[in-house]
Amino acid sequence: MPSLFAVGLLLAASPVPSSPEAPASPEIRRRAVRDFVDSRQHDVLDELLRFLAIPNLARDREGIHRNADHLVAWMNRLGLDSRLLEASDPGAPPAVFAESKTPGASRTLVLYAHYDGQPADPAQWQSDPWRPVLRSARIDEGGKILLPPGARDRIDPGWRLYARSAADDKSGVAAILWAFAALREKEIAPTSNLKFFFDGEEEAGSPHLEAIAAAHRSVLSADAWIICDGPVHASGRRQVVFGVRGDANVDLTVYGPARPLHSGHYGNWAPNPALRLARLLASMKEPGGRVRIPGWYDDVEPLKESERKAIAAVPESESMLRGELGIAQPEGEGRSLVELLTLPSLNINGMRSGDIGDQARNVIPTTASAVLDLRLVLGNDHRRQVERLIRFVKGQGFLVLDREPTMEQRRHNPLIATILERPGGYNAARTPMDLPISRSVIAAVQSVSEKPVVILPSLGGSLPVSILTQTLGTRAVIVPIANPDSNQHAENENLRLGNLWDGIEALAAVMTME
Amino acid sequence: MPSLFAVGLLLAASPVPSSPEAPASPEIRRRAVRDFVDSRQHDVLDELLRFLAIPNLARDREGIHRNADHLVAWMNRLGLDSRLLEASDPGAPPAVFAESKTPGASRTLVLYAHYDGQPADPAQWQSDPWRPVLRSARIDEGGKILLPPGARDRIDPGWRLYARSAADDKSGVAAILWAFAALREKEIAPTSNLKFFFDGEEEAGSPHLEAIAAAHRSVLSADAWIICDGPVHASGRRQVVFGVRGDANVDLTVYGPARPLHSGHYGNWAPNPALRLARLLASMKEPGGRVRIPGWYDDVEPLKESERKAIAAVPESESMLRGELGIAQPEGEGRSLVELLTLPSLNINGMRSGDIGDQARNVIPTTASAVLDLRLVLGNDHRRQVERLIRFVKGQGFLVLDREPTMEQRRHNPLIATILERPGGYNAARTPMDLPISRSVIAAVQSVSEKPVVILPSLGGSLPVSILTQTLGTRAVIVPIANPDSNQHAENENLRLGNLWDGIEALAAVMTME
Repeated sequence: MPSLFAVGLLLAASPVPSSPEAPASPEIRRRAVRDFVDSRQHDVLDELLRFLAIPNLARDREGIHRNADHLVAWMNRLGLDSRLLEASDPGAPPAVFAESKTPGASRTLVLYAHYDGQPADPAQWQSDPWRPVLRSARIDEGGKILLPPGARDRIDPGWRLYARSAADDKSGVAAILWAFAALREKEIAPTSNLKFFFDGEEEAGSPHLEAIAAAHRSVLSADAWIICDGPVHASGRRQVVFGVRGDANVDLTVYGPARPLHSGHYGNWAPNPALRLARLLASMKEPGGRVRIPGWYDDVEPLKESERKAIAAVPESESMLRGELGIAQPEGEGRSLVELLTLPSLNINGMRSGDIGDQARNVIPTTASAVLDLRLVLGNDHRRQVERLIRFVKGQGFLVLDREPTMEQRRHNPLIATILERPGGYNAARTPMDLPISRSVIAAVQSVSEKPVVILPSLGGSLPVSILTQTLGTRAVIVPIANPDSNQHAENENLRLGNLWDGIEALAAVMTME
Repeated sequence: MPSLFAVGLLLAASPVPSSPEAPASPEIRRRAVRDFVDSRQHDVLDELLRFLAIPNLARDREGIHRNADHLVAWMNRLGLDSRLLEASDPGAPPAVFAESKTPGASRTLVLYAHYDGQPADPAQWQSDPWRPVLRSARIDEGGKILLPPGARDRIDPGWRLYARSAADDKSGVAAILWAFAALREKEIAPTSNLKFFFDGEEEAGSPHLEAIAAAHRSVLSADAWIICDGPVHASGRRQVVFGVRGDANVDLTVYGPARPLHSGHYGNWAPNPALRLARLLASMKEPGGRVRIPGWYDDVEPLKESERKAIAAVPESESMLRGELGIAQPEGEGRSLVELLTLPSLNINGMRSGDIGDQARNVIPTTASAVLDLRLVLGNDHRRQVERLIRFVKGQGFLVLDREPTMEQRRHNPLIATILERPGGYNAARTPMDLPISRSVIAAVQSVSEKPVVILPSLGGSLPVSILTQTLGTRAVIVPIANPDSNQHAENENLRLGNLWDGIEALAAVMTME
């Protein structure tokens, strides 16, 4: 297998074709990029394997800096003069930035992906989250571990690469950089000035993105940010997405006795915090899934006609999803998944009191905690939504604090909850779908797709797009590439290799769009 | 500090006084034992420190056997010809047994304690659960770690020994064996034949106790078993207890999507198992604490007049407990703690879905689990009570299974719960308080106590007494010695040393009772 370094040097040595004879047609460009991908699959895979082997939790300073250094070196090999954009907070993960001017181009795009990943509990994984392994198929479909393919071995697009961030979002970084490399090697000029921005703390809510954007406003100015993150449509069709839900996470803790008690000697007398938490959580939603917190849906900005139409045109995928996920009855009282994702949500990401399994003991625990995930849509404000939650909990009879209760507070208040919004909450954002840039991106992605591209007003997921649009006054369009069954954010995250090949094509099409 | 071995040899060398000149009065005996305890505190502490350093989870075969070997060697040094009683299951922890005949005695007592301990999560402890440390006071009262006292240092009875099983129940084993050693050294003859039985799996529910008892019926026959386990009364007064609640633990799991989902892309649509569990648990109890499961209280055998009177005479300790534990409002709708402990209970020992804290991820978890603790009173049967729970869960719309659901089951049943009773459940037991043996034990414990002894028909906690009484046709009386604030079963378990000194006295009094 040729070393990446050699490939990088080669690419760096070939200058941008400053004035190609004639702009190639979309179809010729597409074939050239496809040809590049076909001939370079081993290199792409090799590079991604090495990238995924670097632990990438936003709070792991050393790991994050190793990732950033890896990226800088890689981009430099591609001929991109990259550098770190840092917030004044010395603990903040840096963004990795580079710029490639296109002579004659009047439009500037920022290509965004993130190189940090969600936490991972190795005990829940089939293999170490930061030791990527290749499998012949999805684990639950019998996928077996494969040796890294030799230079002459065929790579099956159905193979899965298992690692934290394989899908979310190092494959996004890889798709962007390899698309750029493809255009370089095939001497196809982009049609826009290109900037590259790789976020190092997206999974932590990008708490420093606003500061970085504010400090580097002119460096980051652009007509649009192209966000490469998230999965393609559940049907397998490519999609272009014009918005994201906002997101806020909340830590909620309720209290029992000040020290853990023997559940025999004190059981039926000492209040059990797990039961208190269960009651409180159960009170928050109706059986059908509607959030009972007053005002939860009040601020929702109605969808535009074009957005409603786009949603109506999204192909049906729920029966397939329900079968695959074993869901007999989804929430939402009959409304479709896409429709539900245009509403604010309330989810329990985690819940814990005492221990289960081998570690379970006959005790009444002292606390019970949950992490709640509040997704927000256009019109919602994350602080206002958290305030509504707090008001609701107070209405259920709780004294609500922002810290642990004192013994005095415990002695005088039967019900106490500590509620704290985690740093990194942000609001939703939506780019109008009928802007010229919006149409261009749709056309570009459609140009590399056999089937009609799914057009979505908003992802169910979140990206710190509102921070960008508010701070930089720009637009954002999302071009997701990951497989929908990637276990994003969960154990056994995986990338279907074919999705990366397709993603490189899609990103190259966007870089060369009309 | 004289080595224990030397002490052991000395004791072994002094034969049982086969016919003392005249039986010493209770007061003379008491003073002799007190004198022994005062002069041997350093040895007792030294021995207990070494015993507590041996990990003692019932499922940790190696650790359990190291404990059993330690006990056998110790008992042999005391002149007791000890041996292991084993179940046919080779993985079962052995009981450690010895016998000491008393010439002329017509009564036989078995002295019972257990040497295994509850699981312990070191992360939740202030010091390693199996590296005992001595503190000047309770941690939350500012107790500081002390160096092991030198031979001439005074030992404060208020000091605390922190370790798993310091209170529950290696101090019980220690109290029994040192009481026996005291009588030997002071040449005081017991009034009963003594048998010693140290259980190695009590905290796992003693699942092999019935088999061991059945296999060694004649070896274990006795007029009564004296159980040294549990805390003295919350008021600090000694207590004699005539029964225990039964106990059953149940693992309960409910299901969400078959694989973890991104809570943005699927939140409001995919059912959340944590919420389902919260709803189910919340439905099980009324706000006041009464269990809503039909029939829960139906089998309860009413208290006898003498038992009701004893309960009415138990000193009030709730206001103190509530202050210390920060409980503003206990469960039970105004009924007293002792009264509530005569009813069957339902508690959540642990509850978990996904992760909280640093490990939290934006996912919809696949499962949510709880471990329930069912305490039972006379009249209840643990299997029947678990059946009621299962029927109730079915009534809430769940398909109840005894294994993980198949994908087919998931696809066709919105609500699925797996419910399994853990091995080791057993029923409650109560010994009538007016039997001669009952009165003798009360008198013996009273003889070493300044304040009136608390007489309790039943502990809130559980011990496998019903297995003994049913298999061996014997009686059981409990003589607890641990401090009530020992954090039994929880992190930072600790023994107040003065409770061990008092416990040795109490056990010696029982061994020499009329």
